[in-house]
Amino acid sequence: MTPGLPAPRDSEAKLQHILLHSARIFAEQGFEGASIRDISRSTGISLSGLYYYFESKQKLLYLIQSTAFTLIIDQLESRLALIREPEARLRALVRNHIEYFLAHPNEMKVLSHEEDALNPPYRGEVDAIKRRYYALAREIFDELVPRDSTQNVNARVAVLSLFGMMNWIYKWHKPEVDPDASELTDAIVGIFLRGVTTTNAEDSAMFTADQSGGHSD
Amino acid sequence: MTPGLPAPRDSEAKLQHILLHSARIFAEQGFEGASIRDISRSTGISLSGLYYYFESKQKLLYLIQSTAFTLIIDQLESRLALIREPEARLRALVRNHIEYFLAHPNEMKVLSHEEDALNPPYRGEVDAIKRRYYALAREIFDELVPRDSTQNVNARVAVLSLFGMMNWIYKWHKPEVDPDASELTDAIVGIFLRGVTTTNAEDSAMFTADQSGGHSD
Repeated sequence: MTPGLPAPRDSEAKLQHILLHSARIFAEQGFEGASIRDISRSTGISLSGLYYYFESKQKLLYLIQSTAFTLIIDQLESRLALIREPEARLRALVRNHIEYFLAHPNEMKVLSHEEDALNPPYRGEVDAIKRRYYALAREIFDELVPRDSTQNVNARVAVLSLFGMMNWIYKWHKPEVDPDASELTDAIVGIFLRGVTTTNAEDSAMFTADQSGGHSD
Repeated sequence: MTPGLPAPRDSEAKLQHILLHSARIFAEQGFEGASIRDISRSTGISLSGLYYYFESKQKLLYLIQSTAFTLIIDQLESRLALIREPEARLRALVRNHIEYFLAHPNEMKVLSHEEDALNPPYRGEVDAIKRRYYALAREIFDELVPRDSTQNVNARVAVLSLFGMMNWIYKWHKPEVDPDASELTDAIVGIFLRGVTTTNAEDSAMFTADQSGGHSD
């Protein structure tokens, strides 16, 4: 455990300092395995000093999760305010998400692995923020692929598959060999856009033939 | 903790019984939080009886992970033996993966969340099995999208994005409202196939226009 830089004095900066260190410790040791003492050691803030910011490990986990999601949504909304075109709006969503999580792998791991560790009422509050994020993504999707289009895509499955592509990156991304956020955005937006917007007769013919092959095994 | 059915007598069946219960307990309590005593209680097998099958919690986690991946790969290989056509081979991969993990949500959670909990030498052995699985998927992809094709797709990113779509399902799938394995396979194969195999001039024009839009925010 390497102690961090001295804790900042300003209270908002101090909270951010705590959340950053706590996310790393939870990512490394798991929520169950980590103690407030570990966090005190890592942040350089006394136990009673920490108590001013959160009164329980549950509250701390809630603060990490809600702060991350709120930041992502706020950033996305300010990006979207400048963009009308549906494909560009999708690209903004993907880029915003990938940029945040490539820069915050510990937060990604904590959001994904410690989702169930959060108890009521915190759990419900984080779920509400996530629903807001999903609704925003779904709105972008519906502008891109109108319900009355000839596409026969299950919108919920499509949007959650897009999140799957983005949210799995932390499992495999090696900065030394893999593309950066900008290239990853291009690749994933490319697959997804073609995947949900392409229609042609050849395609459907191909799927029918192919399906029987796949099901005969 | 509800005690399970009486433990089977046959030693291979008994091991499967242990792995099934242990996966559920690790999924519910996390690897760190779970004790061998919990597993003894849930399986109805004494501590010394369990010791015959694994000598440490590490070994047990290794057995859960390696057994799951080996089963998936074996099943896939026997399915692929009957299929030549590249798209049908991709469909077999996706269907095999989704079927297994929809039926085994606890194993999915343990594979995803407790990947880092495994120490050497077990870690290296599981990594080797995973590399075998990835190589198989990559082979299927390369038959589908030959390297010298006009497609400009990063194969590693594409294959890992496909795994992302599949591996994220356990996070959102609600059997009461969401499609079953067969429909999910159709949806994901549909998005992915169109996503990596479609080429047309309109497409590239769209991406160029769109990219500048996305980057201007």
